[in-house]
Amino acid sequence: MAERKSFGSDNHAGAHEAVLKAVIGANTGDAVAYGDDEWTRGATADLLRAFRADGDVFLVFNGSAANILGLSLLLRRHEAVICAESAHINTDECGAAERILGTKLLTVPAPDGKLTPEMIAEQLSARGDDHRAQPGSVVITQTTELGTCYTLAELRMIGDFCRSSDLGLYIDGARLANAAAFLDCSLADLAECADVLSFGGTKNGAIGAEAVIVMREGLAADAPYLRKQQLQLASKMRYLAAQFLALTEDDLWRRNASHANEMARRLAEGVRDVPGVEVRFPVQSDAVFAWVDPQYLKDLQREWYFYVWDEHASVVRWMTAFDTTEADVDQFVASIRSVAGHSGGT
Amino acid sequence: MAERKSFGSDNHAGAHEAVLKAVIGANTGDAVAYGDDEWTRGATADLLRAFRADGDVFLVFNGSAANILGLSLLLRRHEAVICAESAHINTDECGAAERILGTKLLTVPAPDGKLTPEMIAEQLSARGDDHRAQPGSVVITQTTELGTCYTLAELRMIGDFCRSSDLGLYIDGARLANAAAFLDCSLADLAECADVLSFGGTKNGAIGAEAVIVMREGLAADAPYLRKQQLQLASKMRYLAAQFLALTEDDLWRRNASHANEMARRLAEGVRDVPGVEVRFPVQSDAVFAWVDPQYLKDLQREWYFYVWDEHASVVRWMTAFDTTEADVDQFVASIRSVAGHSGGT
Amino acid sequence: MAERKSFGSDNHAGAHEAVLKAVIGANTGDAVAYGDDEWTRGATADLLRAFRADGDVFLVFNGSAANILGLSLLLRRHEAVICAESAHINTDECGAAERILGTKLLTVPAPDGKLTPEMIAEQLSARGDDHRAQPGSVVITQTTELGTCYTLAELRMIGDFCRSSDLGLYIDGARLANAAAFLDCSLADLAECADVLSFGGTKNGAIGAEAVIVMREGLAADAPYLRKQQLQLASKMRYLAAQFLALTEDDLWRRNASHANEMARRLAEGVRDVPGVEVRFPVQSDAVFAWVDPQYLKDLQREWYFYVWDEHASVVRWMTAFDTTEADVDQFVASIRSVAGHSGGT
Amino acid sequence: MAERKSFGSDNHAGAHEAVLKAVIGANTGDAVAYGDDEWTRGATADLLRAFRADGDVFLVFNGSAANILGLSLLLRRHEAVICAESAHINTDECGAAERILGTKLLTVPAPDGKLTPEMIAEQLSARGDDHRAQPGSVVITQTTELGTCYTLAELRMIGDFCRSSDLGLYIDGARLANAAAFLDCSLADLAECADVLSFGGTKNGAIGAEAVIVMREGLAADAPYLRKQQLQLASKMRYLAAQFLALTEDDLWRRNASHANEMARRLAEGVRDVPGVEVRFPVQSDAVFAWVDPQYLKDLQREWYFYVWDEHASVVRWMTAFDTTEADVDQFVASIRSVAGHSGGT
Repeated sequence: MAERKSFGSDNHAGAHEAVLKAVIGANTGDAVAYGDDEWTRGATADLLRAFRADGDVFLVFNGSAANILGLSLLLRRHEAVICAESAHINTDECGAAERILGTKLLTVPAPDGKLTPEMIAEQLSARGDDHRAQPGSVVITQTTELGTCYTLAELRMIGDFCRSSDLGLYIDGARLANAAAFLDCSLADLAECADVLSFGGTKNGAIGAEAVIVMREGLAADAPYLRKQQLQLASKMRYLAAQFLALTEDDLWRRNASHANEMARRLAEGVRDVPGVEVRFPVQSDAVFAWVDPQYLKDLQREWYFYVWDEHASVVRWMTAFDTTEADVDQFVASIRSVAGHSGGT
Repeated sequence: MAERKSFGSDNHAGAHEAVLKAVIGANTGDAVAYGDDEWTRGATADLLRAFRADGDVFLVFNGSAANILGLSLLLRRHEAVICAESAHINTDECGAAERILGTKLLTVPAPDGKLTPEMIAEQLSARGDDHRAQPGSVVITQTTELGTCYTLAELRMIGDFCRSSDLGLYIDGARLANAAAFLDCSLADLAECADVLSFGGTKNGAIGAEAVIVMREGLAADAPYLRKQQLQLASKMRYLAAQFLALTEDDLWRRNASHANEMARRLAEGVRDVPGVEVRFPVQSDAVFAWVDPQYLKDLQREWYFYVWDEHASVVRWMTAFDTTEADVDQFVASIRSVAGHSGGT
Repeated sequence: MAERKSFGSDNHAGAHEAVLKAVIGANTGDAVAYGDDEWTRGATADLLRAFRADGDVFLVFNGSAANILGLSLLLRRHEAVICAESAHINTDECGAAERILGTKLLTVPAPDGKLTPEMIAEQLSARGDDHRAQPGSVVITQTTELGTCYTLAELRMIGDFCRSSDLGLYIDGARLANAAAFLDCSLADLAECADVLSFGGTKNGAIGAEAVIVMREGLAADAPYLRKQQLQLASKMRYLAAQFLALTEDDLWRRNASHANEMARRLAEGVRDVPGVEVRFPVQSDAVFAWVDPQYLKDLQREWYFYVWDEHASVVRWMTAFDTTEADVDQFVASIRSVAGHSGGT
Repeated sequence: MAERKSFGSDNHAGAHEAVLKAVIGANTGDAVAYGDDEWTRGATADLLRAFRADGDVFLVFNGSAANILGLSLLLRRHEAVICAESAHINTDECGAAERILGTKLLTVPAPDGKLTPEMIAEQLSARGDDHRAQPGSVVITQTTELGTCYTLAELRMIGDFCRSSDLGLYIDGARLANAAAFLDCSLADLAECADVLSFGGTKNGAIGAEAVIVMREGLAADAPYLRKQQLQLASKMRYLAAQFLALTEDDLWRRNASHANEMARRLAEGVRDVPGVEVRFPVQSDAVFAWVDPQYLKDLQREWYFYVWDEHASVVRWMTAFDTTEADVDQFVASIRSVAGHSGGT
């Protein structure tokens, strides 16, 4: 890894000081295992409140696990899932949904990563035909894999459509904090449309912890067993819970996300007029997607760590994190400018 | 939880100081995610060396996950597993093996928790009959769920039998450290007979981390994908790795296990002559199983935290941990004696 | 296969004339595929009437498939099944329940193949513990794998227990016809206690066809999709349905089963006083289990086709079928007597 | 169903006389169950010879089951499948591949239903990345779901590409007979490129029977157990085998397929100059896809049974079968002409 700040992913960052402190603080001798402890009770209460949820909260180890657990609460045994082609569950989880849930993903091209009721509706035409996979739930990602953010109005429309179409709605909220920060709304506002959603700690400054939030009572009954079967029951659960306690205290999660979003905006601003660089999607979270003149890439990647998102199209993804500094961004922008200057643009 | 030391489980204990320190020490800015970092490389190298393994090491979140990943390396798609009825994978993982691997467990009654080649052999009679589940691998637990420990000779015999019978051998090593301490042997000595095994950090003083050790090259090829599908790929892997680095440094794992074993022996010694208390299995790890006069239980459980293992038989399980003190044990023994005295024994 | 009648299994028999005739009769040009045809509608109506079922009927290809489909209607995603150790689903389906349903089988020793409410109750102690597999349904086999038959009173008790314990009840009715014949009751009488059950055609004279009978409306909603996913949707369904139309016409199924039962009783009677032969379970269907002097086996198996059920115990299984004749039985008995005479008994 | 010949599907047809005769002929008293009988041995030998296969043959109940069994021989536990978006396994099997195999389908748009090495190659870019599903096998359908047929040269190229790319190749041969007839080649010629393939009997005049052909020794070892787990082991197997014996005798399968193909060509010829009707894909099997003026549909469907393939595009699928007569086709063409005449075309 380069000496300099990574723009590769928000999970290249370490853990926030307060998270580490909370973990150390939880190390006070014995505690009953598997979640029957005060930290877990505390974090659960905090999260239920923050999401105005009537169901329950289940802590798990990572985002893929949160997605699988969440969906397993919403799908009947034979049902399929509707999601965007770009959905993390479709592209980046190695086929876990198919393997662990046995569910087919009915994927929809969504140019900016966002589903619409119309897109979902098109997947419903074969309902009742026993040859065709039957959709039981929709997955949306907030913020999306392309750094865009559903508005509250969009979420409501999707939520209404799902309810009236007898479809569950799950939100992959690995970066839900970034959405709340961008939209300047509460987590409850984001969650209102959903049946179940995840709230990502890891990309927000945790060591590694995600929460599955079940919005309605009754949906949660099977979750303890499904979590255990899906290999997500932590024995020393308090150390997961403590991380969330740190993030919910004084809404640290929001400060972390706001800062990361702000750094992404700064970066996008900084490269706006650089020849050979064109930002590709609205910058609505901690990610900047940009077309970059292919000639720049080698030089730039020698000095900085980031991923090429689409090799064919020469589109890169630059991500910030809670600990990215203005100086990091400015230095990165300066490098881009310098490379662009030497190459002479396109 | 009672104010006093829990004898409920070795996972009621917190994390060892050195483990926490290592986690904090790993918090040095950015690191590439998903295991491409120096801590993971270090822990992998340490463990390969300690186990004299030619394959690879895969860190996962908990013991059930280690068991599933390990077995998935050894089983063909249709194969079943032979294990003791008391095996954790059979009794305490909520049916994860059946759900996630789709494998049948062919269970064998094993009075002291230990399989023998004879017991395994009896499960092979229906090989080649397509109506019957076909065993592909054996699971043994070391130390067992009943606190007993396979000797090196017993392991060798089982290993030889499995090899000559075309069966994989997986060791559930959630408490492998306790076995190495009890037998005063190396981890490599314990692992020699196996194809794949787990090495438990959590019960040994970690926050939560387990290692799957693949003994032979070639067996490991599919493991990265299976780990991801099984929801066990940590994004900030360094924090799992750091825990193992702490445990392997100067064999801290051995000191932790030895101490816990010693405390269990002390406890067993302490109750040896108490009327109405009879230790049930050889005490060869950090667990003491004992028949206890049913009249004692209520009084004893009011003051101390432990589990009744078998309600019908009035058998309890008392577990020590790396942080159990002699004073804890002595106080517990005194309580038992006092309760026994008041009740007048049987 | 020996020239003589097989006593190996009721599925060694061919198809009944009337079944073949019905299949030929269904070959009248085109019919819409996948069950939207008059034969399927007719067979469904016949079976719903015969079972006094309010749900629906789903035809499948074989008995294992019926069991899997039936159970998949009764189990929540994480749930386990309670069954006898000797249950076909446990011993003779190659682990299909674990592989296809992902369900754990909680097996109970049942000396005569019959579960009781007490045996079931013992499997419920760990309800609510997320480490333990959670039973969601019970499977009983009628008649059992040991040739015994639950009485109507026993069925009622099990049904009542399951209902009051929030457990589904599935009956593996691969030989349900034999039970109705033995008890001289209707199929509806047998089915009353159950949520879902299978009705076996194959062992009763069909070419190959089984029906899954769903007793209650609402339970059947997912079945069309589950049947398709489980690879059981016949395109030319009419040929399965025609088989059932033949079996239900004038209760041919009952005549076939009664005859087979009668032949088994005749066989058991015939060997009653033969030295070195002891019938082992009540003969309540088309199977005779007997301990046979091990010295007889080689001679007997040279002339006749049957299976040794338990090699260790020298117990054999002799099965009759709809087409076993009195002469077949008498000839077989004569052979047994002859072998016993030569060997001089034990 | 209309009185007139169905053009809805080749599985709307009944069974060929010779198939029924063979089934009746197999009804000669007892036969050992589960395939240990002379009919199964005969059909297996016939098919191994016809396909010049070194592996083995496994009879199953339907096409979906053949696909699942075939693929389960070619996929490692974690692997995914590459197929055309229009593949039956993707669109018409209710998600069985995902549910039963747990495999992800990596789908490729293929305008005429045919994959090319280039299309396959594009799915290989993420090999070795543990976040991405790893392709292990390719599925092609011959003839395709769009009625087109891979040439032998195309098959060779795909086969070579798969071999050199370490990918299995499975052919869904539900209509393989139609391909052999169209290309005027042997089944062995078609199979040469494949590792495993299915040979469909049902659409060719069987009652219901499909064969999984394993081309290479070694690939077949697990198949008996997988077939049983996948609920495809017929107890009275002889009746499946007898159907294949009828189809292989004097290559009845070829005559049936040739005739159906010929009828499809006749139909396509017949509508060539009808205004408001445009045939959409090359007619290379027993299917005619055509754009039809939407105004015609109601009238035409009142008299004839067929499916609208794509409602939006007003494309219909007309299928012939082994028993479609020239008169059927001519009558159908006359109806189309008449409807077109009345409507006045577009």
